Amino acid sequence: MRELGIGLIGTGFMGRAHALAFNNARAVFELPVTLKLAALADADTERAQRCATAWGFAQAHGDWQALIDDPKVDVVAITTPNHLHYPMAMAAIAAGKAVYCEKPLAVSLEQADAMRQAASAAGVVTRVGYNYQHNPMIALARQMIANGDLGEIISFQGEFSEDFMADPASPWSWRCEVEHAGGALADLGSHLLSMARYLVGDVVSVCADTQTVHAQRPAVKGSGNLKPIAVDDQVHALLRFANGARGTVSSSWLKHGYKNHLSFEISGTQGTLAFDQERLNELRVCRVGQDGFQRLLAGPALPGYAAFSPAAGHQLGYNELKTLEVQELIMALAGQGADGTDFEAAWEVERLATAIRVAAREERWVNVNLV
Amino acid sequence: MRELGIGLIGTGFMGRAHALAFNNARAVFELPVTLKLAALADADTERAQRCATAWGFAQAHGDWQALIDDPKVDVVAITTPNHLHYPMAMAAIAAGKAVYCEKPLAVSLEQADAMRQAASAAGVVTRVGYNYQHNPMIALARQMIANGDLGEIISFQGEFSEDFMADPASPWSWRCEVEHAGGALADLGSHLLSMARYLVGDVVSVCADTQTVHAQRPAVKGSGNLKPIAVDDQVHALLRFANGARGTVSSSWLKHGYKNHLSFEISGTQGTLAFDQERLNELRVCRVGQDGFQRLLAGPALPGYAAFSPAAGHQLGYNELKTLEVQELIMALAGQGADGTDFEAAWEVERLATAIRVAAREERWVNVNLV
Amino acid sequence: MRELGIGLIGTGFMGRAHALAFNNARAVFELPVTLKLAALADADTERAQRCATAWGFAQAHGDWQALIDDPKVDVVAITTPNHLHYPMAMAAIAAGKAVYCEKPLAVSLEQADAMRQAASAAGVVTRVGYNYQHNPMIALARQMIANGDLGEIISFQGEFSEDFMADPASPWSWRCEVEHAGGALADLGSHLLSMARYLVGDVVSVCADTQTVHAQRPAVKGSGNLKPIAVDDQVHALLRFANGARGTVSSSWLKHGYKNHLSFEISGTQGTLAFDQERLNELRVCRVGQDGFQRLLAGPALPGYAAFSPAAGHQLGYNELKTLEVQELIMALAGQGADGTDFEAAWEVERLATAIRVAAREERWVNVNLV
Amino acid sequence: MRELGIGLIGTGFMGRAHALAFNNARAVFELPVTLKLAALADADTERAQRCATAWGFAQAHGDWQALIDDPKVDVVAITTPNHLHYPMAMAAIAAGKAVYCEKPLAVSLEQADAMRQAASAAGVVTRVGYNYQHNPMIALARQMIANGDLGEIISFQGEFSEDFMADPASPWSWRCEVEHAGGALADLGSHLLSMARYLVGDVVSVCADTQTVHAQRPAVKGSGNLKPIAVDDQVHALLRFANGARGTVSSSWLKHGYKNHLSFEISGTQGTLAFDQERLNELRVCRVGQDGFQRLLAGPALPGYAAFSPAAGHQLGYNELKTLEVQELIMALAGQGADGTDFEAAWEVERLATAIRVAAREERWVNVNLV
Repeated sequence: MRELGIGLIGTGFMGRAHALAFNNARAVFELPVTLKLAALADADTERAQRCATAWGFAQAHGDWQALIDDPKVDVVAITTPNHLHYPMAMAAIAAGKAVYCEKPLAVSLEQADAMRQAASAAGVVTRVGYNYQHNPMIALARQMIANGDLGEIISFQGEFSEDFMADPASPWSWRCEVEHAGGALADLGSHLLSMARYLVGDVVSVCADTQTVHAQRPAVKGSGNLKPIAVDDQVHALLRFANGARGTVSSSWLKHGYKNHLSFEISGTQGTLAFDQERLNELRVCRVGQDGFQRLLAGPALPGYAAFSPAAGHQLGYNELKTLEVQELIMALAGQGADGTDFEAAWEVERLATAIRVAAREERWVNVNLV
Repeated sequence: MRELGIGLIGTGFMGRAHALAFNNARAVFELPVTLKLAALADADTERAQRCATAWGFAQAHGDWQALIDDPKVDVVAITTPNHLHYPMAMAAIAAGKAVYCEKPLAVSLEQADAMRQAASAAGVVTRVGYNYQHNPMIALARQMIANGDLGEIISFQGEFSEDFMADPASPWSWRCEVEHAGGALADLGSHLLSMARYLVGDVVSVCADTQTVHAQRPAVKGSGNLKPIAVDDQVHALLRFANGARGTVSSSWLKHGYKNHLSFEISGTQGTLAFDQERLNELRVCRVGQDGFQRLLAGPALPGYAAFSPAAGHQLGYNELKTLEVQELIMALAGQGADGTDFEAAWEVERLATAIRVAAREERWVNVNLV
Repeated sequence: MRELGIGLIGTGFMGRAHALAFNNARAVFELPVTLKLAALADADTERAQRCATAWGFAQAHGDWQALIDDPKVDVVAITTPNHLHYPMAMAAIAAGKAVYCEKPLAVSLEQADAMRQAASAAGVVTRVGYNYQHNPMIALARQMIANGDLGEIISFQGEFSEDFMADPASPWSWRCEVEHAGGALADLGSHLLSMARYLVGDVVSVCADTQTVHAQRPAVKGSGNLKPIAVDDQVHALLRFANGARGTVSSSWLKHGYKNHLSFEISGTQGTLAFDQERLNELRVCRVGQDGFQRLLAGPALPGYAAFSPAAGHQLGYNELKTLEVQELIMALAGQGADGTDFEAAWEVERLATAIRVAAREERWVNVNLV
Repeated sequence: MRELGIGLIGTGFMGRAHALAFNNARAVFELPVTLKLAALADADTERAQRCATAWGFAQAHGDWQALIDDPKVDVVAITTPNHLHYPMAMAAIAAGKAVYCEKPLAVSLEQADAMRQAASAAGVVTRVGYNYQHNPMIALARQMIANGDLGEIISFQGEFSEDFMADPASPWSWRCEVEHAGGALADLGSHLLSMARYLVGDVVSVCADTQTVHAQRPAVKGSGNLKPIAVDDQVHALLRFANGARGTVSSSWLKHGYKNHLSFEISGTQGTLAFDQERLNELRVCRVGQDGFQRLLAGPALPGYAAFSPAAGHQLGYNELKTLEVQELIMALAGQGADGTDFEAAWEVERLATAIRVAAREERWVNVNLV
C-alpha cells in the first residue's frame, strides 16, 4: 500500500484539529493508503518539537519552507494565519505537493485566482477546509437533492451568525482587517456560501448589503485606545442560482444567542429541508405528502458516520467532521472519486464573496462571473 | 356609556372571525363604550339573515350600501374580497363612519393612497386587520425594543411562508390575480412587512427578487385547462430601515412543512429576540449577559393576555388575536391612545410592497419614499 | 329545533370561560339544538346581574338553588369552589337537570360516588370539565390509537407540572386543604389521570409516592404567620393499565420553568406519540418505518378545528378547548353519540387518584377496583 | 514524567472507541503522565495484530491473560462481552493493575461485589465506562447542583429509551440473556441509574415494574425458530433518594423515535434543569426569577470542553465523552482528585438495578441497602 507523508504547518487550535483528524482518520477508516505523520512546522522550533511529539509527527521544522522541501512530505496542510495561505500554498504547489489549506483560500481574489491556476497547471490535488460540509447530515441533504427528493430546488435561505464580536468592547484583532480576510462575510459567511454552492450549485448574480456597526474597537482588551474598523459586522444578500433557485444569505458576528448558527433551509417543489450546525446531528425534512417536519438523527446508515459509531444517536462532534474531511482528502489523493472543495471551488467561493462586497459597495446586482 | 353600533360586511371565514371577536371583546374586556352588533350585510340576503341570528347582529342587509347608510352603524367592518375594500371603505368614509378593513387595504397603491387621504380628510378612525400584531408576545417584543432591552436594533430577518400553493395542481384562484392583490408577497408578505414596520420602524429602501415558479395552474381543481399565472410564488428582499437597521424578508406559499410560518429574528446590540407564529404563545430572547436563548411563554403579566386567562401557559389562539385587535379598535374609537394599523400605516405597507415589486422588476435598489 | 336553557353558577375566571364557550359554541358550530343563556347565579346579586348582562344571560340569580329551580334552565353548569360541587350537582340531579361540573367532581371519593350514582339513577346527562381532552390534537391521538397506528399500547408516561407554588412564600390557599381537593395530585394530576384513561383505558393498579416539600406556608401573602400544609407538592406513580400497558405519572406545582406542562408520551409496538399542553396545537409522532419524530400541526382536517378556522397553523387557544367541550356536552344532550367525561368517568378518575394516595400512604401497590 | 502502559482487551466497536480515546487524550490534554499504548489483546491473534498496528499499540496478544501479565501494562482496559468482565478484572486486580472496565461491571451482583472488594483490598484504581457522565454539560449540571443553584433537589425524572429492539423481528442476541446482563434495565437503564446517583446521590428505596413485551424473538435474523425471552423490554420505577428527593426512571428499548434518549429533569426548590443525550451539547435551565427555560450550549468555559475546541458551539461527540472519561481515569491514576465511577460506585449501580428487579418481581418497595 502506498504511503502518504503528511506535513502540517501550524500548531494552533486548527493545527491540533488537523493532527487529531489525521490520527483518527487512520484509526477509523480503512484507507487505500498508509498515512505517515511526517513533519510538523512552527516558527517556534521548540513548540514545533513539543507538538510533534504530542501529536505523533516524526519530525519538527522551525521553517515552513523546510517542511515543504522535506521529501517525506507528500501533502502540505496549512493552518496558519490567512495571509500566509498564499505563499505557503504556492510554494507547496511549486514543489509538486498536494495542498490541504484552511479557509479562506487567500486574503484577496487575485491570490485565490493565482493559487487555483497554479494548482491546475501543476496538476496537484488541493483541498480547502470547509469542514462543515463533511457532516453526514449534509451528505444526506446533498443526496436527497441529487435524488430529486425535494423536486426542483427553488429557494436557499441561509444564515451563519455568532456572537463573539457582539460586545463593542471586544477588541480589534486580525479578524478586523480587510488584508487578513476579516469581517463577518469572510470569516463566517464564506462557510455559508460554500455550503450553498455545494448543495444548490453555482450562483450567477447577487445583490447585497454590508454594515459595520461598531466602527471602532479597543486596540487591545480594555484599552481606551480605539482602532477604526472597516470590515463588515453583518451582511445580508440576495442570491440567484444557475439552476433558477433564489435565496438569501445573512451573516453576523454580533448576534446575541448564537454560537455556531450555520443554518439553512432549502425549499423545493417536492419538499423542504432545514439544518443548523448548533444541532449538527439533525436534519429536519418535510417531503410532499408528509404534513410537518420530521427530525432525522445521524446514524450509521449515513455516509461516514459508521466509522465513528455503530449506533444512531451517538452524535458526532466538530472534530469528527474534520476527520471526515481528511478522509475525503485521502480518497482524492488515492484517485477515488471525491467531491471536496478544491482550490477551484474555493476560488469560486471567494469570487462569490467578492461579488457580494461589490454589490454592497455599488448598491446594485452583480453578475458573479464578471467579478 | 356611549354606544357604538357595529356593522359587518361579509359572512365568510373572516366575517365570522370578526363577529366572534366583537362578541368576545364585549365579554372579556371592560370597554369604555357599549358595543351593539347593529347590522350584518351579505349580498345573499337569506345568508345575511341566518348569520345575523347566529352571531347576534340586530339586523341583516342584502346590500352593503344600506348597511353603511344605516344610522345605527357607527363602525363599518369590511371582510369582503380585496377588490371591494376600496368602494366600501370610501363609501363608509363618505358617510363619516369609522372603518375596520381586512388586509390588504386595497388592490392597488393608488386606491390605498386615495383611501388614506379620504380618511384623513374626513377625520374618521380607521383600522386594518394585521391581526398578528395584536399578540401579547408581540406587545412584549415591542416593549422590549422600546425600552432598549435589545440596545440599538441592527437587523430584522423575517419570513412568512406557508405551503398551501405548494402543489402545482392547486388550482387558480383570485389569489393568483394581480388585480385582486394576489401573490405570496401581497397575501403573506404584507403581514411581515407590517410587522417589520410595527417593530423596527420605517423602511427607506429595498432591493428584491420575486419569482413565479408555477407559471400555469389548473383553471379549476382537476382540470386539464391551465391558466397562466403572473403573481409571485416567492419573494426575497433586502431592507434598510430609517433607524439604520438592515434586514431580509422572504415569503413563499410553496414551502412544504409550513402552515403559518410568520417568523422573525430581531437583533440588537444588546440582545436578540425570535418569534414564530406557529408557536404564537412563545418568544425566544437572549439578552446580553445571558448565554443562550430563553423561551418566554405568554402569561397574564403581558398586555391583553389576562383578559382571556389568569394563568400563564393557558395559550391564546388566532381568534383571540382578533379579539385583541377589536379591543384596540374600540380604544381608538374611544380616543384612548392606541397604536393599531390605520389606513395611513396600511398605505405605508402597500407602498413598501410596491417598492419591493418595482425593485424586483427593475433589478435595482428602490427608495420607498419615491414609489 | 329544541331549545336548551343554560344556567351557569359562578362568575370567576371559570364562570367567564363557560360563558364565552357557550356563546362561541353557538356561533361556530351548527348545533342540533338552540342554546339559550337562561340564567347566571352568584351569591353577590349585583355581580350576578352585571356579569349576566356582559355575558348575555337572560336573568341573574343571587341564589344557586333558585337557578336550579328555574324552569328555563335545562343544564346546570357549576364553576364554584370544589366543595360546592357536591351540593349543587346533587340538587340539579334531584331537579332532573343535566349537569356540567368543573373538575374535580368532588372533594371526596364518597361524594363522587354518590354523585355518579344519583346521576345514573336519575338518568341525567353529566359532564365534567376535563377541558384538555377536547383538543383536536388529542382527538387525533385517540383516533390513531383506536386505529392501531401505534400497534399495541405498551407505555404511558405523563407529567403535569407547573410552578405556581414553587416559591415557598406563596401563601396558603384553599388549594392547600385536603377538604377542598387541594394538592398537586388533585389540582393538576387529575387532568393527567383523566387523559391517561381517555387515551389508554382503565388503570388496574398503582404504586405511588407523594411528598409535601414545603410543610408550612404564610397564612396570607407576606405574613409571618405560617400555616401547616398537609397536601402533596409533588407525586410520582406507577400505573398498570387493564390492556397491559405500563406507565408513570408525575405531577408537581413546584417545578420552575413550567406553566402548563400537561405532557405525555404514549408508546406502542408500532409507534410513539408525544404531546405537551404548552404547545397544544402540536403532536409529535413517530410511526414504525419513520426514523424520527414528525411534528404535526393542528388543522381543519382534525375534528373540531375547522369550526374555528379554515387554515392549518391558525392555532387554537385554551378557551377554544372549552368551546369544544361545550359542543361535546350539547351533542350528548342531543343524544348524538359523544365520548366526554361524565360523572361515572370522573368518579373513576377520583378513584384512581384515591388509589394513588392510598398507595403512597401505605407504601404498596393498590388495586384500583378495591379502593 | 511517569509512564503509564495501557493494555486494551477487545477490538470491537468499544475497543476501538477506547483506542481513539487514549490516543486523543494524549493529544488534547496536558496529562501528568506519559501514556504508552503498550498492548492490545484479542482472541483472534491476527485481528489483534492488525488493530494494534492501526490503533498504535506497541504489541498484540492473542490471550488476554498474557496482556494482563505483560509488565509493560499498568492499566487493563476491558471492552469484551459482559460475562468476561469478572474474570478479566479479577485477574488484573490480582496482578495489581488498574482496571478500566466497560459497563455493566458484571453480570451478577455477586460478581460485582467480589470485584469491588478485591479492588479495594488490592488498592488498585478502578473505573467503569459510564461515559455519558463525562459530558461537560453534565459537569455543569453537577456544579450547579453542588453550588445550590437549584436549591434543595426535590425530584429526578429520567428516561433512557431507544428503539433498537422495537421490531419484534429483531432477533435474539446476548442482550436478551439474563446471564449476560441483558434487558433494557441493564443495558440502558444502568446508565440512567448511574447518572441519577452521580447527580443526586444515593437511592435508598425503590418500587418498580418491569415487562417483557415480546416474549419470543427469532433465534437469528429472519428465522422462524423462535427463542423465549426472559429479560425486560421496559422498566418503570419510583426512587427515593437519601437526600429526600423523589423520582422516576423509565427505560425501554422498544420506543420508536428514540436513538439515544438518555434524558432527565432535575427539579429543585430554586430551579430546574433538563438534559437529553440526543442533544448532548445542550442543557436547559430555569432558575428562580427566570420565567422560562434557557438553552445553554457547551463551550470552552466548561470543564473539559476547551481541550477539544476554543469555540462555543463547536459541539462534542460521543467519542470525545470517551476521551474525557480516559482523562479522568488518568488523573485518578496520577492521584489528582477525580470523581469517576469506580468499582465501588459501579457496584452501587448494580445493587440499585438489582433492587429494582426485586421490587418488580415482588411488587413491593425495596430498601436498596438490604439487597
